[in-house]
Amino acid sequence: MATPVKRIGILTSGGDCAGLNAVIRAVVLRAETLGWDVVGIMDGTHGLLENPPHVIPLRHNNVDTVVMRQGGTILGTTNKGDPFAYPMPDGSVKDRSNEIISAFKKLGCEALIGIGGDGSLAILSRLAQQGGFPLIGIPKTIDNDLGITEMSVGFSTAVDVATEALDRLQPTAASHDRIMILEVMGRDAGHIALTAGIAGGADVILIPEIPYNIKNIAAHIKALREGGRNFALVVVSEAVLSPKGGSISRNFFGGQKRLGGIGHILGEEIAEACQAETRVTVLGHVQRGGQPSAHDRLLASAFGVYAVTLIQQGKFGRMVAWKDRQVIDVPIEEAIKQNRIVEKDCTLVNTARGLGICLGDDGTLRV
Amino acid sequence: MATPVKRIGILTSGGDCAGLNAVIRAVVLRAETLGWDVVGIMDGTHGLLENPPHVIPLRHNNVDTVVMRQGGTILGTTNKGDPFAYPMPDGSVKDRSNEIISAFKKLGCEALIGIGGDGSLAILSRLAQQGGFPLIGIPKTIDNDLGITEMSVGFSTAVDVATEALDRLQPTAASHDRIMILEVMGRDAGHIALTAGIAGGADVILIPEIPYNIKNIAAHIKALREGGRNFALVVVSEAVLSPKGGSISRNFFGGQKRLGGIGHILGEEIAEACQAETRVTVLGHVQRGGQPSAHDRLLASAFGVYAVTLIQQGKFGRMVAWKDRQVIDVPIEEAIKQNRIVEKDCTLVNTARGLGICLGDDGTLRV
Amino acid sequence: MATPVKRIGILTSGGDCAGLNAVIRAVVLRAETLGWDVVGIMDGTHGLLENPPHVIPLRHNNVDTVVMRQGGTILGTTNKGDPFAYPMPDGSVKDRSNEIISAFKKLGCEALIGIGGDGSLAILSRLAQQGGFPLIGIPKTIDNDLGITEMSVGFSTAVDVATEALDRLQPTAASHDRIMILEVMGRDAGHIALTAGIAGGADVILIPEIPYNIKNIAAHIKALREGGRNFALVVVSEAVLSPKGGSISRNFFGGQKRLGGIGHILGEEIAEACQAETRVTVLGHVQRGGQPSAHDRLLASAFGVYAVTLIQQGKFGRMVAWKDRQVIDVPIEEAIKQNRIVEKDCTLVNTARGLGICLGDDGTLRV
Amino acid sequence: MATPVKRIGILTSGGDCAGLNAVIRAVVLRAETLGWDVVGIMDGTHGLLENPPHVIPLRHNNVDTVVMRQGGTILGTTNKGDPFAYPMPDGSVKDRSNEIISAFKKLGCEALIGIGGDGSLAILSRLAQQGGFPLIGIPKTIDNDLGITEMSVGFSTAVDVATEALDRLQPTAASHDRIMILEVMGRDAGHIALTAGIAGGADVILIPEIPYNIKNIAAHIKALREGGRNFALVVVSEAVLSPKGGSISRNFFGGQKRLGGIGHILGEEIAEACQAETRVTVLGHVQRGGQPSAHDRLLASAFGVYAVTLIQQGKFGRMVAWKDRQVIDVPIEEAIKQNRIVEKDCTLVNTARGLGICLGDDGTLRV
Repeated sequence: MATPVKRIGILTSGGDCAGLNAVIRAVVLRAETLGWDVVGIMDGTHGLLENPPHVIPLRHNNVDTVVMRQGGTILGTTNKGDPFAYPMPDGSVKDRSNEIISAFKKLGCEALIGIGGDGSLAILSRLAQQGGFPLIGIPKTIDNDLGITEMSVGFSTAVDVATEALDRLQPTAASHDRIMILEVMGRDAGHIALTAGIAGGADVILIPEIPYNIKNIAAHIKALREGGRNFALVVVSEAVLSPKGGSISRNFFGGQKRLGGIGHILGEEIAEACQAETRVTVLGHVQRGGQPSAHDRLLASAFGVYAVTLIQQGKFGRMVAWKDRQVIDVPIEEAIKQNRIVEKDCTLVNTARGLGICLGDDGTLRV
Repeated sequence: MATPVKRIGILTSGGDCAGLNAVIRAVVLRAETLGWDVVGIMDGTHGLLENPPHVIPLRHNNVDTVVMRQGGTILGTTNKGDPFAYPMPDGSVKDRSNEIISAFKKLGCEALIGIGGDGSLAILSRLAQQGGFPLIGIPKTIDNDLGITEMSVGFSTAVDVATEALDRLQPTAASHDRIMILEVMGRDAGHIALTAGIAGGADVILIPEIPYNIKNIAAHIKALREGGRNFALVVVSEAVLSPKGGSISRNFFGGQKRLGGIGHILGEEIAEACQAETRVTVLGHVQRGGQPSAHDRLLASAFGVYAVTLIQQGKFGRMVAWKDRQVIDVPIEEAIKQNRIVEKDCTLVNTARGLGICLGDDGTLRV
Repeated sequence: MATPVKRIGILTSGGDCAGLNAVIRAVVLRAETLGWDVVGIMDGTHGLLENPPHVIPLRHNNVDTVVMRQGGTILGTTNKGDPFAYPMPDGSVKDRSNEIISAFKKLGCEALIGIGGDGSLAILSRLAQQGGFPLIGIPKTIDNDLGITEMSVGFSTAVDVATEALDRLQPTAASHDRIMILEVMGRDAGHIALTAGIAGGADVILIPEIPYNIKNIAAHIKALREGGRNFALVVVSEAVLSPKGGSISRNFFGGQKRLGGIGHILGEEIAEACQAETRVTVLGHVQRGGQPSAHDRLLASAFGVYAVTLIQQGKFGRMVAWKDRQVIDVPIEEAIKQNRIVEKDCTLVNTARGLGICLGDDGTLRV
Repeated sequence: MATPVKRIGILTSGGDCAGLNAVIRAVVLRAETLGWDVVGIMDGTHGLLENPPHVIPLRHNNVDTVVMRQGGTILGTTNKGDPFAYPMPDGSVKDRSNEIISAFKKLGCEALIGIGGDGSLAILSRLAQQGGFPLIGIPKTIDNDLGITEMSVGFSTAVDVATEALDRLQPTAASHDRIMILEVMGRDAGHIALTAGIAGGADVILIPEIPYNIKNIAAHIKALREGGRNFALVVVSEAVLSPKGGSISRNFFGGQKRLGGIGHILGEEIAEACQAETRVTVLGHVQRGGQPSAHDRLLASAFGVYAVTLIQQGKFGRMVAWKDRQVIDVPIEEAIKQNRIVEKDCTLVNTARGLGICLGDDGTLRV
């Protein structure tokens, strides 16, 4: 008598990032070694609202080496709305969670693997509890603001892209005696700005976790100038507030209004405060896509394999996480409730201060 | 009796780009093989207005392999103003050409090698004629709009950077069902947009040489959608006019006003015309700087060596140029009077049309 | 009455290189704008020897942007033998040209587009003449040794890869006081070695076109050392003969016998002659594959589009070529009979000498 | 009365790698914020044996952003021999440790920061104990085989380079129906091979920690072939033993004898066992040098800053280490006595097995 074959579902949800396809590939390859089927659900939970459900069978030939190297997600992740408050064509909102749960159950999957950030995992977790189906979460976010895990999929590539931008901006800044401002992504946390800023040799790094003052920045740049430097590199996280104290409204153009994100505001403020030429680069969506770094492919592969192992072991409601060179698993709830911001005296903040980088505050290192 | 040693001057002028240091290195290495001295003049002609003149002796150890790989220019290129109409602190303008000529003559150089675009070479040529000193021009411009030469230094790297941006934007566009707009540099000509657009798989390429219509773009994107494509890539040159017909004023922030360059305007227009999500990336100064491509280093090396050879041969008033795998030399005047725009039926335009890329006009290929 | 639809065949032949998929894509997209069908023949002419013939229909969705960015060829190019002297299982050889011609004719194609180097194009041309079918050739070779065309598909990427290798070897050479030898591809011509050598800052470049002497190399490295340099970079083309004068037999391991290619021989000879530590890197097949450079994608796109246009115009027996920023077409016979080697006083040789690079001969520049 | 200024020494020892300059920069910048001097000792301890000692003062302008991006080490690391058994010109060996200690003491440094791998740190530690001077170790090794620390400087870049090589080899393998063998560095441990192999989509990964059998490899490749795959990627660590069981002697050519390292041996064995074409690439020294990855620059910066902080705190005999997103410090002795090999059931081994990668043993995953 043949062993009944297990089937698992997988979806990607929230903003895309590099490495998602490497996760999908790892899940499929691991499942195949166990003789299991994998069903890919398109566009997050949205694929389950279509009639018939928009799902595709996934086999190793859908997810080969070539696909692993591609950015984005072959499953799509177009956000059409919150399942619990779905925007309807008539302008109303509707709870469509039961439709999703019902459609998922009809797929005959033993469990769902959801790849997402804190928002997506929270929604998936709520669906799983309501629907009574087993869920495994895999953390992805270029912002790296998910709790517990040292790294989420996508962060490493985003840092590489932002660092390369600084590598390109430095020589043109030096050739023209300019102050270059680079605005990077990071909606709630400054990890990209801080990490790429250190790696890319920034002189000033502004992150939402540390309040700043234009005067401190201007004083720092003045000191650099007196030390013989004719240029400066400033990295700022998109979530940093206006120097006037207010938050900066954003809309759908590249994550910021045409009237100007924080990068452009700082460009004007610093130009005036330093009496210097500034140029602003808003890095935008190139941070999301493109070929994943080796590190993201590794992390993605380890997470994908381990997620299937958890299903095999019957451990559910868990998120895989990276800690001290190992994959571990933790309750999803625990991971998503700890939005991981940059901590006050963490290694990277101390490293930045130790290098003499201005973080916009008084700049001193508590030594 | 010792042969009298020749001395030559060199400067970089206008916007920086990748490959300038490779030119400087080639000039110095070639001059050293002849036993000549090279004097680097800082910040274009501005170094000659300082007292004492801001010049540095250049030897092979200033310009080694490591320096060749660096973007920007070790000689600086900070523009302080037109020598013939120099902005003075009191707000007036002054003809300072004779000061520059006089300071250059005091350096004792037999000739000046000027690395610049059309604007810079025009000014240098006027100075050389007025001052009666020999000049050799080396073309550099990321826009590649200088006449006669197939390629100017800096263009190849800029195209690589813009193409890589498209490589990163495509997967995130596809993951989210989005139309991505990439605004690239190109003040008077669309070479970067056209070249990178073809290499990066763009669906729509807008360049200043070809008038466009939002309706044509929308129709093209609609046709793609009907053919099963869920995303589109649009590349636009910064010099493209507003769809309303007016030109778009620019200021010093990244070459465009905070109120929005053509990229953001198109983002709104296309979103509305296609009823689709758009995202806009303004690539900005990352196109200028950073490590030069192998091609730019090669071109720069060939130009630098040949420029010294021209001095050796007593051929002056010439610009070096690349043509059919060889360096040639042409009268500077001839090169700069031909602003090289994208021509109507050139290979790249025909290639774009042949691939089915929409150039904003009616999109047909005259076959 | 519907217009009869044309069908064209396409194949890739010979060693693979970056950019082949971009050619295939361009042919398919251009053909589709004309309403034509494209049939891909697998593994060069070999696909026509299979029963049934191994061919695949090609539509735009087989050759999208993602595929364009991939190295190698989706049509395969596994060489099973010369059609006119095909190795049979029993050890005999057989003329199978008529089988290939007959199978091709059964496909109902109006013309064949063959992408290959000089060897492949010669065979295809002979088949076309014998079979009386129309042929268009598209030049590809990382060695860039095809006549007339300034550039063949694949060369630009190979140069980029070799230059990057030099960029990586230089700092480790400098850190350890070493002489680094890099062996690059180039079976009959030294274009890769010469181009990448200049771009990567090599001190010595050895190519098959220029006879060399270990003494000259040692003298050059000694002079560098006396000038304060503690390292040297040597680039050598795989086809360079042994310093003892003999040619170096090669077998199927990475193009060279385990007993050592020219790189390792030089490593020993130079170590002894210079009394210095040497390290040898044989770059090998990484030069062939991988993501094509922007330039290779551009060239490939222009060639592919133009090849279809030639068919449309009924011009056959032509090879497309790149010349002075345009695609032109020339008789295939003319292109392949001119094996393009590095010429004696070409710009690149003069550039190398002008930079003081040792080419292994007496090192002087005829100025 | 002025505060007496502290002075610290710094040296790099052992094989170079990417990120060393970023460590030096971080030490100098951090020291300068404290008002301390930094003395760079050239070529490991060897600079102390020269008369006068070969040392250079290091200030922030020696170690700017541009230098941080360079591979190798500006301090040099040419190995002239073990201080305790130094090879003399007459062929004898001599204990020169006291000369080194004495020369170091004359520099007036409060402490020495030594950047090295396990071998170098062991020697430095012995010197420090014998000489009674304070030492701080900073771990660097592309092999990542140092104990306790999750990561050493240089590993991340080496993995990136090896992964990129696989990315380039995969398409050419697929185009030609070939088995590609990539030999990577790793003298005692298989971390590079395992990490890059997973990230680069290898089918077979051989590391010194896991005994292998050609039969298992051949069976695996046969199974892939039956599943429709026409190529395979094999990554092997240079330290892997011959399939005949013997170790492979190495000499100074690229770390391996011309008669062939393990890569070429496997190339022949696998070709025979699988009746397939194989090609071998020995990646060699490109893994060492070149621009450090963002991650290596970050790690280097964090280590350098923290090392100075340890001196400030009077904590000596410590090695800095990376653990769980923080820099910590551990006794040097403890770190170097634990040669960190790939452990049997670690996450990466399980990930490889989970993906179906053959590790040369029986290939099963203990699930």
